[in-house]
Amino acid sequence: MKNQHLEIERKFLIRRLPRNLGRYSHARIAQGYLAADRGAHVRLRRKGRISTLTFKRGPARSREEREIRLTADQFAVLWPATRGARLTKTRYYIPCRDLTIELDVYHGSNDGLILAEVEFPGSESCRSFQPPDWIGREVTGVKRYSNVRLACD
Amino acid sequence: MKNQHLEIERKFLIRRLPRNLGRYSHARIAQGYLAADRGAHVRLRRKGRISTLTFKRGPARSREEREIRLTADQFAVLWPATRGARLTKTRYYIPCRDLTIELDVYHGSNDGLILAEVEFPGSESCRSFQPPDWIGREVTGVKRYSNVRLACD
Repeated sequence: MKNQHLEIERKFLIRRLPRNLGRYSHARIAQGYLAADRGAHVRLRRKGRISTLTFKRGPARSREEREIRLTADQFAVLWPATRGARLTKTRYYIPCRDLTIELDVYHGSNDGLILAEVEFPGSESCRSFQPPDWIGREVTGVKRYSNVRLACD
Repeated sequence: MKNQHLEIERKFLIRRLPRNLGRYSHARIAQGYLAADRGAHVRLRRKGRISTLTFKRGPARSREEREIRLTADQFAVLWPATRGARLTKTRYYIPCRDLTIELDVYHGSNDGLILAEVEFPGSESCRSFQPPDWIGREVTGVKRYSNVRLACD
């Protein structure tokens, strides 16, 4: 049974962009961090009309994750507190067998950076994942590529 | 005009309990921290049926504070993440001229500790505050008495 508060995820650089990227569904994401200590962080995110607050704790590959939807009013109160710790990206959802690769094209001060993330239903599918050929070096857990770091630099 | 997101506050030890403490309105508070970095923290609090999420940043005496009400469902998702960083206290609301002294009687691992906090509408009333004679030494900004610290010890 999947633990609903466990996020199992791997992150990769890419070798090249998948062809016809624009045909995949995609969304612009703005996110920022309220607080980030060494073990945990609290993130605000807006994707289209959907606002969320997310708590994450633990190592990159397997983390506790707890997320709630926020109303527009709740989001509006908290969002200003993320100033100086924000990023924006366009996320493309690319089906890959029974999984979805999330390809993040960063904007603003991270312009030029593109990362691919895959979330897994369990540790076995995480271990056995065979990336498509456009996926490059794995950077799971590499601090340089953590979103907290990318938001604060 | 008061900045709605600025909290101006001082904190004190007490010399003795005010007489007939039980006659003042009071409430039991449970709170815990989702994340606390050196500058900011995110707190969950339940007081009676009211649940809140609060962001605070800055020095103890004058802090940015942003707070939202949470539904019971939102609270239930996030609260487990505060394990290991919680405290409980009973808060008494004691009128003092045009201000209210909040007297916090701590429970659990902080049993025996009692602190008084006063929030001010502006910096002038903060400076000129004359505490009643049962108030003791000021501990505003003393880390030992910060709620984040008390929750994590």
